[in-house]
Amino acid sequence: MNFIDLIEKKKLGKVHTREEINFITNSLMDGSILDCQIAAWLMAVCFNGLTKDETANLTLALASSGKKVDFGELSGLIVDKHSTGGVGDKVTITLIPLLAAAGIPVAKIADRGLGYAAGTVDKLESIPGLNTNLTTGAIVNQIKNISAVIASQAEEIAPADKKLYAIRDLTATADNEALIASSIISKKIASGAAHIFLDVKYGSGAFMKTPEEAVHLSKLMVNIGRALNKSITAVVTSMEEPLGRAVGNSLEVIEAIEFLKGNIKNGDLADLTYFFATTALLKLNLYDNEQEALKYLKELVSSGKALNKFKELIIAQGGNSQVIDNYDIFPLPSFKVECESKKNGYIHHINAHEIGHAAKILGANREGNNRPIDLSVGIFLNKKSGEYVNKGETLYTIYSNDADKTKIAQRYCDEAFCINESKPSQNHLIYKIIGNEDEDV
Amino acid sequence: MNFIDLIEKKKLGKVHTREEINFITNSLMDGSILDCQIAAWLMAVCFNGLTKDETANLTLALASSGKKVDFGELSGLIVDKHSTGGVGDKVTITLIPLLAAAGIPVAKIADRGLGYAAGTVDKLESIPGLNTNLTTGAIVNQIKNISAVIASQAEEIAPADKKLYAIRDLTATADNEALIASSIISKKIASGAAHIFLDVKYGSGAFMKTPEEAVHLSKLMVNIGRALNKSITAVVTSMEEPLGRAVGNSLEVIEAIEFLKGNIKNGDLADLTYFFATTALLKLNLYDNEQEALKYLKELVSSGKALNKFKELIIAQGGNSQVIDNYDIFPLPSFKVECESKKNGYIHHINAHEIGHAAKILGANREGNNRPIDLSVGIFLNKKSGEYVNKGETLYTIYSNDADKTKIAQRYCDEAFCINESKPSQNHLIYKIIGNEDEDV
Repeated sequence: MNFIDLIEKKKLGKVHTREEINFITNSLMDGSILDCQIAAWLMAVCFNGLTKDETANLTLALASSGKKVDFGELSGLIVDKHSTGGVGDKVTITLIPLLAAAGIPVAKIADRGLGYAAGTVDKLESIPGLNTNLTTGAIVNQIKNISAVIASQAEEIAPADKKLYAIRDLTATADNEALIASSIISKKIASGAAHIFLDVKYGSGAFMKTPEEAVHLSKLMVNIGRALNKSITAVVTSMEEPLGRAVGNSLEVIEAIEFLKGNIKNGDLADLTYFFATTALLKLNLYDNEQEALKYLKELVSSGKALNKFKELIIAQGGNSQVIDNYDIFPLPSFKVECESKKNGYIHHINAHEIGHAAKILGANREGNNRPIDLSVGIFLNKKSGEYVNKGETLYTIYSNDADKTKIAQRYCDEAFCINESKPSQNHLIYKIIGNEDEDV
Repeated sequence: MNFIDLIEKKKLGKVHTREEINFITNSLMDGSILDCQIAAWLMAVCFNGLTKDETANLTLALASSGKKVDFGELSGLIVDKHSTGGVGDKVTITLIPLLAAAGIPVAKIADRGLGYAAGTVDKLESIPGLNTNLTTGAIVNQIKNISAVIASQAEEIAPADKKLYAIRDLTATADNEALIASSIISKKIASGAAHIFLDVKYGSGAFMKTPEEAVHLSKLMVNIGRALNKSITAVVTSMEEPLGRAVGNSLEVIEAIEFLKGNIKNGDLADLTYFFATTALLKLNLYDNEQEALKYLKELVSSGKALNKFKELIIAQGGNSQVIDNYDIFPLPSFKVECESKKNGYIHHINAHEIGHAAKILGANREGNNRPIDLSVGIFLNKKSGEYVNKGETLYTIYSNDADKTKIAQRYCDEAFCINESKPSQNHLIYKIIGNEDEDV
């Protein structure tokens, strides 16, 4: 088999056999194909797509490229949650301790940032000392000890996906649905998850711009799960507006801690966290009544059990757990600028893409692979959609280390806010749930 | 400017500005973009194309990426000839000495092989000692001394094209028309040619499969020439069948020498060589009558002047000119196999693609960059289209160093021949001429 012929084949819109897909991942692993060749193939995939079978085969091939995590007797219980990424999305950090406090073993294999969305791994690294670079052995041990772990994709887990991901990131080929689906699910399979919950986002701050695209991707992933006997539940949610109020690494972890302390009871961050947690309790047959499940979860927060679980996680992963009580331990920016509203009115919309771009300008996210990011900077949205702001009142706050970048970021933030005298209708956060049991998948 | 954004732009089918095209070639030269990124961009170009302006801008940018050859007072006279490549195409080796013998300074910047077509540089390197790796200074001197030079693309000439070409070759992105056109013309501009003659081939043994595609590419190149004030004449010719009888590096040089010795008076090789030479004499206003020009050219061959010019060229470039009288000096294969016809009949067609593939299997051409090729091996077509063959008579001869490869090559060669009792109609070699003066370009 010759890889140039396989590039040509995909360029012509033909379908790869399982052997060809395996050849691609094997060659990627043994270095017998060049990065430029895989990039050309990826771009051809962006134009001509992958069929359902090709996608399932690629998923398996990527998952099989390294070690598989074996949780032993816990294997059938392990939960993982994944978000396709969005501006201000820190639900992983709120959800994992909450579920673990409910007795559910949650092994989250997280990514670094890609595009506009900072990754959970980046965010957690703003906690001094915290290490997400765990071996598969360490992951299994931590689950057995405290039921919760958030690890970056270990070298050993789906290493072919890691290579592919790095090239996709550099070559504007990150947004293909089949590539996204196979990348996500391959890691979940290799990392031993039995129940996978997916937050598939659409909107200005997400890869997918429309709910239809997100539904399509969701079905693609649920289908892969069905083919591979994995329980997958995909929730299509809106990313038209940043999730929560904080955007930027330290700032988001602080907001997540505030939720776990019980200080954030309402709003999209709380709603989405509780929605995923409730769905998990029902799906795992721990509860059959949604209201009771929700009540139980709220008690886990108000009693401090969820927060305590996060503390255990920080300690288990070598981090300084004093950050929970002293936010000054987080990396701090040189200055903050409180930006005022230029008019009175209701917030109708905050464009997530613009806010994400502003955060990127400040340095909160990376462009290309292996670029350092500034964990201290970001944006805090003092006002969110549906709220009223008076002229001169603080609309948002920029945390920055560079005056010039601040000015540019401010322009993007000002652009992002849509303020109007009329009262806005409520935005819908959750669009659709798609699970293995759905017939139309 | 960010190259990932430019890949995305082309992926979305948008048009690059001149500045963006210059950014691409500059970044290619200073190494600030990765091979995988340029590969992704190239594949996006294959799908979404380049406009006329983008192609002209790319041509200029590539030409400007290195030194330009300056022939001084001869500048306005320099002729270059280029073929888009075909199986058995050795017209460069027959034409350059013939034109130079007619007093026309011909500076041919040649390629190595790409795809199925071996390059002129590869072929000439079968002459022991011959060096095509000349500096721009050496090229100018040789033109002043003997009016003829065949050099490989010097490092200094259009180096950005060289880089792009290497990646195209590895990534199945070599066949895009705009990329082909800009690559060809950029080298001609940088190498100082004033009159450019292009042999644009179509058919099973060429990049372009149909005459329409070849006409399209021709117009693209003539257009670039018009925009840049270069006289470009494109001749669209058939490559359905190998040109001449020899396919393989040494074998083709020997066939070219046979032509220059006056031993090949008829057939496609002689026809195409005389056609290009006549066209050049008319275009340069050295003759106004086609028949007289042809008569003059035939005299240059029969008198030995063309052969002598080739000898001068070999000597000037350090080669052993005794090869002209002693073919045993060429690299020789271990054995040759004469393959018999399995039936009586006229040859209706010899598929150039199959023969090219057979030659590639024998090792006469490279796959990928920098792979060594076997200069000694190849195929000799004892019978060509229109000729009659008796069952048991030699149809073709394989020159090889490997018995297993020979068997495979034989299968391809047998497939290539179409033999039938009825007398075939004549094949047309020349489809169309397109020049700057043509209105419909």
